[in-house]
Amino acid sequence: MNYCSNCGARVVIKIPQGDHLPRQVCPDCHMVHYSNPKILVGSVPVWEERILLCRRAIAPREGYWTMPSGFMENGETVQMGAARETLEESCAQVIIEDLMSVINIAAHNQVHMIFRASMGSAYHAPTPESSEVRFFEEKDIPWDDLAFRTVTQALTHFVEDRRQGVRSLHIIDLETTRP
Amino acid sequence: MNYCSNCGARVVIKIPQGDHLPRQVCPDCHMVHYSNPKILVGSVPVWEERILLCRRAIAPREGYWTMPSGFMENGETVQMGAARETLEESCAQVIIEDLMSVINIAAHNQVHMIFRASMGSAYHAPTPESSEVRFFEEKDIPWDDLAFRTVTQALTHFVEDRRQGVRSLHIIDLETTRP
Repeated sequence: MNYCSNCGARVVIKIPQGDHLPRQVCPDCHMVHYSNPKILVGSVPVWEERILLCRRAIAPREGYWTMPSGFMENGETVQMGAARETLEESCAQVIIEDLMSVINIAAHNQVHMIFRASMGSAYHAPTPESSEVRFFEEKDIPWDDLAFRTVTQALTHFVEDRRQGVRSLHIIDLETTRP
Repeated sequence: MNYCSNCGARVVIKIPQGDHLPRQVCPDCHMVHYSNPKILVGSVPVWEERILLCRRAIAPREGYWTMPSGFMENGETVQMGAARETLEESCAQVIIEDLMSVINIAAHNQVHMIFRASMGSAYHAPTPESSEVRFFEEKDIPWDDLAFRTVTQALTHFVEDRRQGVRSLHIIDLETTRP
């Protein structure tokens, strides 16, 4: 941020009164501009024991596999966001179930929230974001071709929980999204 | 947002190519400015069965009671944020335990994440944000003087779970933070 988004003046970096961190502050209109972590939401959709994954059609990590996920939008709940991202990336309509993975990536100012999801039908299709969308049996998950460490972690949580017959919440920290 | 924070030009509202929602876009440098939900993090600190609450010294809802919580900052995990906010608002050093409440407030573009927490000592003190910080027995929780519906919900989750001897995750939607 170089300019105040409210009045267009050049911002300065300073610690506002009563605050404890440097912020971008407008010397003209005095607006303090905060920057906060973003939430990514997604799901692991399941149909007849198989998992739906998407092959990324866009950078970064084009050609690699991921569960459907993306940035949460204003005006939605985390569950709404997870269902919307799943629809946008895979054309699958899902019922969002329990929260499975909360993945902190402090270095990137991100919190990923991944839900287990069931599908009302087997329908899915490629999208502008996914060159290929298909079901995987657990034994066929393309572990070496997953797009991000967040995907590896979430699918590991899913598989381990299913093998143990439990549904638990896993909260973990990652240094990066890279595989 | 009126001006581009990158180059200072007046922004326009339009749907960027490949997107599906109107965004603030700069006609000069072509930067797309996204606005996303914010995360609030907090804790319900417990010492010898009693709950630590803070009386708000600042607007909104000055004089009403809350668990310590506030906006998550860049560069931290949700647990780090919850511990920091607790320290800032109550001077209490806590050990963050399990995630207890995820509260969606879609109308305000907020997601609140509240953890159960234990205290390493009984130490606590007023702060610039809290005119009074004190322990409450469960029977003395000031239900009629809580600051926000998020507080009422989180304390209800805490009390109900403790009575049942369980620790569960509650994910709920609220229309507003108001009591």
